[in-house]
Amino acid sequence: MLAEDGAAARPKRADALRNIEAIVDAATRLLAADPDASLNEIAKEAGVGRITLYGHFDSRATLLREVAERAIAHSEQELGEVDLAGDPREALGRLLEASWRLTHRFGALVIAASQALSPEQLRRAHDEPAARVRALLSRGREAGEFRDDVPIDWQLSVVQAILHGASAAVHRGEITAEDAPGLVGDTVLAALSVANSR
Amino acid sequence: MLAEDGAAARPKRADALRNIEAIVDAATRLLAADPDASLNEIAKEAGVGRITLYGHFDSRATLLREVAERAIAHSEQELGEVDLAGDPREALGRLLEASWRLTHRFGALVIAASQALSPEQLRRAHDEPAARVRALLSRGREAGEFRDDVPIDWQLSVVQAILHGASAAVHRGEITAEDAPGLVGDTVLAALSVANSR
Repeated sequence: MLAEDGAAARPKRADALRNIEAIVDAATRLLAADPDASLNEIAKEAGVGRITLYGHFDSRATLLREVAERAIAHSEQELGEVDLAGDPREALGRLLEASWRLTHRFGALVIAASQALSPEQLRRAHDEPAARVRALLSRGREAGEFRDDVPIDWQLSVVQAILHGASAAVHRGEITAEDAPGLVGDTVLAALSVANSR
Repeated sequence: MLAEDGAAARPKRADALRNIEAIVDAATRLLAADPDASLNEIAKEAGVGRITLYGHFDSRATLLREVAERAIAHSEQELGEVDLAGDPREALGRLLEASWRLTHRFGALVIAASQALSPEQLRRAHDEPAARVRALLSRGREAGEFRDDVPIDWQLSVVQAILHGASAAVHRGEITAEDAPGLVGDTVLAALSVANSR
């Protein structure tokens, strides 16, 4: 078969792109829910054979890097579209809502992939979103809206911990994905606000 | 040498106990800071040879289970000594302070060991401390001190997320271990308190 018709064994360019897309999409979905999902499970979810998957991604690490690269690029774009101007509390609310969606969708995946990521990818996945939140916290502290009697690094840690905690709570079925962004926004603002300092 | 004096190769019972103690203590310290610490590093830190270590613990999993067992027993004792009576906010403050110490000391270690732990050990490490916080949250909600317009499961997630976030922030050098319990208590109470709901 292979010898008779080599062209049929080589998928057309459009098919290949469609398969790559399906594999990356399936890997994104599965790894976000279960960081230990196997390449077999990913191939099955993508509706492609194992051989096809290995034809495009020669190792789990190669696939993880590609999946993470797309997740990071997508996150940068979504975060870049958030309006950070105006009232710092409202701007933080908008940023938290976008961050929640991205953390819940990609957080477990980036952690799963972190061994396979380049230092540059890790920096883009963690440091750049953190810098965005930090700049907004800093503006809110100067405006007297957020407490400035605790370290800004601590406030940043609290924001990150609550975002990741919410994602874990949804995965455990303790809160719904619909309720999560409201709970995150509410809790972060309560923890940061000047009115709440003792 | 071995043939001539078998007794010398077999440590006395007191020596053996001292070595086990030193190995478990060293493993507790190292694994809390670096969950990937090797058995070689642990033997070195304990001041014993690799052979001695393997004589007492036939695998990394056996050592991890013993280390976790002691950490869990120690945590149960410390948490059991916290006075949970009286004003719910103050009781929660005391419980958070003890929980902070234990999370910072043993949290990374229990996570490192979680693959090696029995379901019973995992339950004792996670569910029993959580049940203690939950009971106190419940009492504070009934007393009108804590918000009861958000799920109690969410409040429990927030407490755990902030405790673990503080431990990670100390490991990253962003806040000091001395400042951490105050920041944790302050932030958790701000996030839970009725006065802070919008």
